Amino acid sequence: MSKDSKPTIEDLKKTLTLIVGQENILFANDNADADTDNSKMQPYLEESRQRKVGVAFAVIFPSTTDEVAKVVGTCRFHKVPMIAQGGNTGRCFGCQTDNPNAVIVNLKNMNHIREIDVENQTVTVEAGCILQDLQTAVAEKGLFFPLSLGAEGSCQIGGNLATNAGGINVLRYGNTRDLTLGIEAVMSNGTVLNELFELRKNNTGYDLKNLLIGSEGTLGIITAATFKLFPPESNSEHGFIAVNSVTDAINCLQQAQKRFAGKLSSFELIPNIAIECMEKHSQLKCPIGNQHPWYIWYKIADANIDKPLFDENITFLDELMNDGLVIDATVSQNEAMKQHFWQIRETIVDVQKYEGISLKFDISVPISAIPILIEKGIAAAKVICPDIRPYPFGHLGDGNLHYNFTCPKTMTDEEYLSQYQDKLYETIHDMVDGLDGSFSAEHGIGSQKVADMKRYKDPVALDLMRKIKHSFDPFNLMNPDKVLPKK
Amino acid sequence: MSKDSKPTIEDLKKTLTLIVGQENILFANDNADADTDNSKMQPYLEESRQRKVGVAFAVIFPSTTDEVAKVVGTCRFHKVPMIAQGGNTGRCFGCQTDNPNAVIVNLKNMNHIREIDVENQTVTVEAGCILQDLQTAVAEKGLFFPLSLGAEGSCQIGGNLATNAGGINVLRYGNTRDLTLGIEAVMSNGTVLNELFELRKNNTGYDLKNLLIGSEGTLGIITAATFKLFPPESNSEHGFIAVNSVTDAINCLQQAQKRFAGKLSSFELIPNIAIECMEKHSQLKCPIGNQHPWYIWYKIADANIDKPLFDENITFLDELMNDGLVIDATVSQNEAMKQHFWQIRETIVDVQKYEGISLKFDISVPISAIPILIEKGIAAAKVICPDIRPYPFGHLGDGNLHYNFTCPKTMTDEEYLSQYQDKLYETIHDMVDGLDGSFSAEHGIGSQKVADMKRYKDPVALDLMRKIKHSFDPFNLMNPDKVLPKK
Repeated sequence: MSKDSKPTIEDLKKTLTLIVGQENILFANDNADADTDNSKMQPYLEESRQRKVGVAFAVIFPSTTDEVAKVVGTCRFHKVPMIAQGGNTGRCFGCQTDNPNAVIVNLKNMNHIREIDVENQTVTVEAGCILQDLQTAVAEKGLFFPLSLGAEGSCQIGGNLATNAGGINVLRYGNTRDLTLGIEAVMSNGTVLNELFELRKNNTGYDLKNLLIGSEGTLGIITAATFKLFPPESNSEHGFIAVNSVTDAINCLQQAQKRFAGKLSSFELIPNIAIECMEKHSQLKCPIGNQHPWYIWYKIADANIDKPLFDENITFLDELMNDGLVIDATVSQNEAMKQHFWQIRETIVDVQKYEGISLKFDISVPISAIPILIEKGIAAAKVICPDIRPYPFGHLGDGNLHYNFTCPKTMTDEEYLSQYQDKLYETIHDMVDGLDGSFSAEHGIGSQKVADMKRYKDPVALDLMRKIKHSFDPFNLMNPDKVLPKK
Repeated sequence: MSKDSKPTIEDLKKTLTLIVGQENILFANDNADADTDNSKMQPYLEESRQRKVGVAFAVIFPSTTDEVAKVVGTCRFHKVPMIAQGGNTGRCFGCQTDNPNAVIVNLKNMNHIREIDVENQTVTVEAGCILQDLQTAVAEKGLFFPLSLGAEGSCQIGGNLATNAGGINVLRYGNTRDLTLGIEAVMSNGTVLNELFELRKNNTGYDLKNLLIGSEGTLGIITAATFKLFPPESNSEHGFIAVNSVTDAINCLQQAQKRFAGKLSSFELIPNIAIECMEKHSQLKCPIGNQHPWYIWYKIADANIDKPLFDENITFLDELMNDGLVIDATVSQNEAMKQHFWQIRETIVDVQKYEGISLKFDISVPISAIPILIEKGIAAAKVICPDIRPYPFGHLGDGNLHYNFTCPKTMTDEEYLSQYQDKLYETIHDMVDGLDGSFSAEHGIGSQKVADMKRYKDPVALDLMRKIKHSFDPFNLMNPDKVLPKK
């Protein structure tokens, strides 16, 4: 560009292309015949279930932190919004945009594991690494990375960090935040925050790491992180039990916590409707009688293989039986059975779609409030829509339910959504709020729950968040319109 | 004050007195004979070891969050600096000030435990509660709060939060940050941030909780918090072992982590000089031969009392013996012995003072770097001061050493400090920095380590911290001149 003229869109195109090379950038083109970029861009523009289709000026794939910094610096110079994107598996429309001038910064080319430090039990990995690849790589070194969730085959570490992902091992190991020792991130002015420490303790100033984790790309773009690793769960036992009520399920949880303490890794609630749906739409069978009101799958694990947990697991179940808490139960006798239990937990999520669309909630409440939430929530939902099919399941151990409601058999998806979506969200979220709960336990806000932020979030917290956002990103270019509601 | 005049110091005095009542405020007085407030103020002005004597306009003791909010609002109106203070047990001069206009906001009257929720295993407590009182109160309900440190009899929860305190159970339970589910805090404009959730998962916006934790009163005043509780460590075993080298100690740690995983609560390194010093200056005796180079005290614990850990502990020690890692060892045979081991760990800290002043470090490095840090650090210190007495001990399990250096026998405290303090701090901190370590692992920054922040902290991190500080506290009234270096 000449010294006297304003930067043009062509300048922007040229500079971005120079930074990453033309093989690593796609530009939207009005003339769809002119090139195939538009169709190549599609998977990066739309939400993976096609519930939201976005637009963008370009999708760019930087390969290094330096390239990300240059891309961000360039976009800032041109005042172009930037949307950081990982595996695009999020459920809250966090990396789609309606802005045709926006640049989607996809991190998939930054997928290197920089270092696995066996002695210190840490790993430093780039944001674009797929979660499962990271799990596998550290397992090959005899260590264990406990973050585990349904999308692990395609979600990326950067997305896990941006949303502070949870999953099935939070009960024992915490969420993504709890596993993270250090981060590297590109800030809105193109500078690089380098806090890739592998230290367990470091009290030198404000906690920028945790501020960036969970900020969904609105404060900066996380490019790498250092995580804690653990000894592998070489010695694990699973149980699959049926109970009469959610209250009994919570009693079982408390007994398990007392007995197994830090060895309890997962404790998942499954309703009968999910078992029925699974048996109808998959090859999987329930390992115990399939007509009980509620099921629990749990896992206990230890690193020490000298003391098998099998006997302890049996003793635990005997106790539950004696206390009248359990109707039926079985334990894993071998690896195939463990795999079977885990598949059930995964499959009940997948099969929902065969019964029509579901309105999905990702809520948490204090554990003692779960029975009342389930009872009153279902009652209220049935008042709104009498034939609605409640499908509540999830991480009972940490109070996080995926409190879903499948559409009535007699209704189309469109009818269901248009008639009941808004009312149901409001009713359930109001109830959760009244129980001192959270309307987003592990999936984040994206653009989907911005209105909930306005409705439920402490106004002082919103004010502080806005102050941080404005001071970090004064031109509002980092994933704008996400997380924070307009005033 | 009249409408036309500027607010006066008398207005400020009057308003503050109205908020808390005159029994809950002390004012400095130029005429020491006029009242006894000056001497009553003294304990709140000086650091507990008298290493720093501060000043203040007033020390105020609000009793409720509302009173804190009014005090903060008043101080802001008068543009008076506010220093939040807990038990005043910090080691980095975090709650002293040189500003005679400052108001010290001491939280000791806010010492209520608001709720112990047994079912959800959480406690909500006010900032002024003494740590030991909290431990005791939850123990009475059959639960366990794992934060534990030397000052627990007098330090307050608010100070633990402000500095993200660590202590002896971090290896298993994490530091204060890891134990905190929610906080309540008064911001610089007198508004109250209410995020007192007892949720294990809550991804609704930026992590303000962790931003305030560890910010040492520079962003707001934490008035209450909700913490995770745990099943009591009813079943615990201790070991006390002697090893030839720090490398052997780390090998023992790794064996312990492999065997005990989440059951390993503490793993503390003790040098021979500390055992000698303890035997000289206290009634305590080393439970094993007192002439070995290094000692380790460790604790394993479980909630489940059905499976005593004694045998497992013996097996572990047999293994270490067979591997040639241990010279001598003993295990706890009863509660008195456990108490004895714990007292040794506490006493080696206290007795240092009888040998003259020590220059104290609170550093962390990746665990694999500890042997080289100890070897090279001691060598470098002896080049600077040949008769210096290195006294490194601490939390080996999380890489955090209290890497202290006691003055030579032939030297006065004053000579030692004036000749060697600056040079030694710089040498050791440079070395820690070179090993990707932290110059403040668990004690924070206060005013003592502000220069280190300038020297070692990532400049991008400093820039972001300044942005947050300015947006939260635009008049720089919340504990000014702490944590952040001037530009």
